[in-house]
Amino acid sequence: MARDERSVTPQSEDFSAWYNDLVFRAELVDRGPVRGTMVIRPYGYRIWELLQADLDGRIKATGHQNAYFPLLIPQSYLEREAEHVEGFAPEVAVVTHAGGKELEEPLVIRPTSETIIGEMMAKWISSHRDLPMLLNQWANIVRWEMRPRMFLRTTEFLWQEGHTAHADADDAMRETMLALGFYHDVAVQAAAMPAVKGEKTPNERFPGAERTFTIEAMMRDGRALQAGTSHFMGTNFAGAFGVRYTAESGELELCHTTSWGMSTRMVGGVIMTHGDDKGLVLPPALAPYQVVIVPIGRGDQAQEMLQPATELASQLKAAGIRAHVDDRFQLSPGFKFNDWEMRGVPLRLELGPRDLAAGTALMSRRISYQGSGDAKEPVELAGAAARLGAELTAFQAMLLQRATDFRDSHTKIVNDWPSFAAAVATGWALALHCGSTACEDEIKAETAATPRCIPLDGEPASGECIRCGGPSAYGKRLIFGRAY
Amino acid sequence: MARDERSVTPQSEDFSAWYNDLVFRAELVDRGPVRGTMVIRPYGYRIWELLQADLDGRIKATGHQNAYFPLLIPQSYLEREAEHVEGFAPEVAVVTHAGGKELEEPLVIRPTSETIIGEMMAKWISSHRDLPMLLNQWANIVRWEMRPRMFLRTTEFLWQEGHTAHADADDAMRETMLALGFYHDVAVQAAAMPAVKGEKTPNERFPGAERTFTIEAMMRDGRALQAGTSHFMGTNFAGAFGVRYTAESGELELCHTTSWGMSTRMVGGVIMTHGDDKGLVLPPALAPYQVVIVPIGRGDQAQEMLQPATELASQLKAAGIRAHVDDRFQLSPGFKFNDWEMRGVPLRLELGPRDLAAGTALMSRRISYQGSGDAKEPVELAGAAARLGAELTAFQAMLLQRATDFRDSHTKIVNDWPSFAAAVATGWALALHCGSTACEDEIKAETAATPRCIPLDGEPASGECIRCGGPSAYGKRLIFGRAY
Repeated sequence: MARDERSVTPQSEDFSAWYNDLVFRAELVDRGPVRGTMVIRPYGYRIWELLQADLDGRIKATGHQNAYFPLLIPQSYLEREAEHVEGFAPEVAVVTHAGGKELEEPLVIRPTSETIIGEMMAKWISSHRDLPMLLNQWANIVRWEMRPRMFLRTTEFLWQEGHTAHADADDAMRETMLALGFYHDVAVQAAAMPAVKGEKTPNERFPGAERTFTIEAMMRDGRALQAGTSHFMGTNFAGAFGVRYTAESGELELCHTTSWGMSTRMVGGVIMTHGDDKGLVLPPALAPYQVVIVPIGRGDQAQEMLQPATELASQLKAAGIRAHVDDRFQLSPGFKFNDWEMRGVPLRLELGPRDLAAGTALMSRRISYQGSGDAKEPVELAGAAARLGAELTAFQAMLLQRATDFRDSHTKIVNDWPSFAAAVATGWALALHCGSTACEDEIKAETAATPRCIPLDGEPASGECIRCGGPSAYGKRLIFGRAY
Repeated sequence: MARDERSVTPQSEDFSAWYNDLVFRAELVDRGPVRGTMVIRPYGYRIWELLQADLDGRIKATGHQNAYFPLLIPQSYLEREAEHVEGFAPEVAVVTHAGGKELEEPLVIRPTSETIIGEMMAKWISSHRDLPMLLNQWANIVRWEMRPRMFLRTTEFLWQEGHTAHADADDAMRETMLALGFYHDVAVQAAAMPAVKGEKTPNERFPGAERTFTIEAMMRDGRALQAGTSHFMGTNFAGAFGVRYTAESGELELCHTTSWGMSTRMVGGVIMTHGDDKGLVLPPALAPYQVVIVPIGRGDQAQEMLQPATELASQLKAAGIRAHVDDRFQLSPGFKFNDWEMRGVPLRLELGPRDLAAGTALMSRRISYQGSGDAKEPVELAGAAARLGAELTAFQAMLLQRATDFRDSHTKIVNDWPSFAAAVATGWALALHCGSTACEDEIKAETAATPRCIPLDGEPASGECIRCGGPSAYGKRLIFGRAY
């Protein structure tokens, strides 16, 4: 269907169409020429850079070091860990020719880097003094995607992958939880996304992991998004690649390893956690522009406002606020207001001759909320940075609260099947489960819901499985939901 | 030949072996499993991150925006620009299978991104109001390398590539020179590398460019390193991909485009510009650790120094100095001194009980120089940050001066062939040339030297070609040298 290029399907009408329209319309992405690939445009990439900076700071502050491992991995590496190759072989892209010749061994483009990093760690680690080895890389990943969706599932995506080696299981488990904590904190503090920490059921583990932990967030259509995962590998990869160390006792021991990743998928999560019928709503911590200033006036008057608008922007920038002046004088103020609303800018300032004469600018919030006063209010130009800084902090907190309220009001404790089916149709169900993979599969076939996680902070509970009536496993309720 | 794992061939004995030994010994890199690939280890990657941060700041400050374009490019894209495909086709890696199937059209892993970005710019640009479009991406690149060398020529490398579109040739040429200026400034100010700005001869242009500009730096063996290039494409790529805009006049016009890149090769340049027989010498601006503190003492005394050493490091870190405490108590101070010298740390501080009692630490510079006083001197712990900050600034300036002196003393103005051959055996020759590609090839066959660039600031000069005696071209002398 041909749509007006400017229009975005309302979220309330069709969530999926809204998302697909919006990512293009807001110039976050474009389609790459190869099916399932995306071009991340500057406005989308800036959100990713802000996320990266936040996460990279947490990773470095805890003693991890960044490194870079090759994109191309000999196909035979994948085969050394049986579950790993089973999980990834169907998704890999294979290089068979290079430099004008057929290669002796095909190479895969990394679908993840456990194997090549395992190979290098085996070379680098010899003594207990080399442990823990705490590495991270920022990289692109290719996994051939049958049902691509911008940011959420793309054939190529960007991520960081942490890879660590430890002397024993306890230390590796501490690391697994530390990394899960990074993701939770980035989600909550930067993305205003009240993600839940939990463990995956065996059926949903990373191929080759002993335990997989996740943060799960609720989107505004009630579906779950897995927004970051942290894996405890035990000695699976260390055994496959010979990552060993000499202990203080002199014994040769296998390392315990972990890996953990967060990707550009997170940008999709931000869009679906906060957006509304008008378009994006960006949390200030991740907004490319936190404040947009629109010069207002008839005829030449708007252009005369350019200088004071630029001075105001400079004042804000000096205070660390990402401010932008919209100097597209060929466009009407109304068009610009809609445009920046659609692009999710938290605060807009209008600056016209009468405002300037009064020493103020007129502020609008992307979303008004309780305690925020009227839709538009004047802000004194003198001291605007402090005032707007406080507004941005309040806006960020409001988004987190709103998303938390939404999540909580769409999460039901359920004890019977009809209630379960009703709950997962619009949100999450907290339910007991027997732990059988076959039973999980039946639930998925009937409702499209899967166990998202065993929440770490769940209360002790036991009884009958919500589906089959068998005795419950895990000692607590699981979160079930339909997922991206 | 089996070497002691700790030893590095002295630079003065064999420059090439010195380089190859050092990059591994200093833990900058390791070999990847696929021939010609490298693993960039944390110590090497940190140098790259510091370079990135410096360059990214310059790129953003001038209105460019980062974006990300796909890794995989349809093979047919390369073929749209005739010189481009001729230049890159022999070097590409080709994906023929993905997702368990053979692909309908083979995909190449980007050897550079002019084609895919041209395709997208054609979609995004319609009016003169969309211009200039100023994009940059940080990405990995694959070019199959027959004679790999760590950092300098690797099958995969990291770089940034700027791609811009402009309304006219003048604006595109201004951009080409702006980007060349970024590279020159990063080289001089961050890498302490007195690079020369110049233009490439037609024979050395980027495939598809109308003009290619370069910064060329002299390594300590007298060879040249091309450390960054900036290309004026005219309308070649815009024509091939249909990058057009409607001018204010209403006419449909082709854009003029540019591209420019600097890569991890630059790290190799830093090593070869400043290193010596003892190992690396890192400019403070790019040193992962600018100051290393070694606790000193017999038996438990060294451990007792750990706390004051850590406090000193905290004082320095708070002042923005990258300080590190070497707490490897199983190793002797002598071993550590050699280790950090080899790894190129600008300043070392020894802290023992007597130093502490005197309220000082004993400072050593990686290289002593005129005006720097004795090899070791005490530094007051109170106020150490200010003192060391000044030392680092002086050290950085000294390296630039030393490299400039080296370059100047190894550059000769030559007017006859024997002098030319002698000059390029140990450094650079400034010589007149006829401009013929065949003549360039003859010079290369006989001396291994190539025209590095036509220096932008060269004095007007003309006369006979140094090789064939024909009339000189370019109106000035060229820099000739053997190159990496």
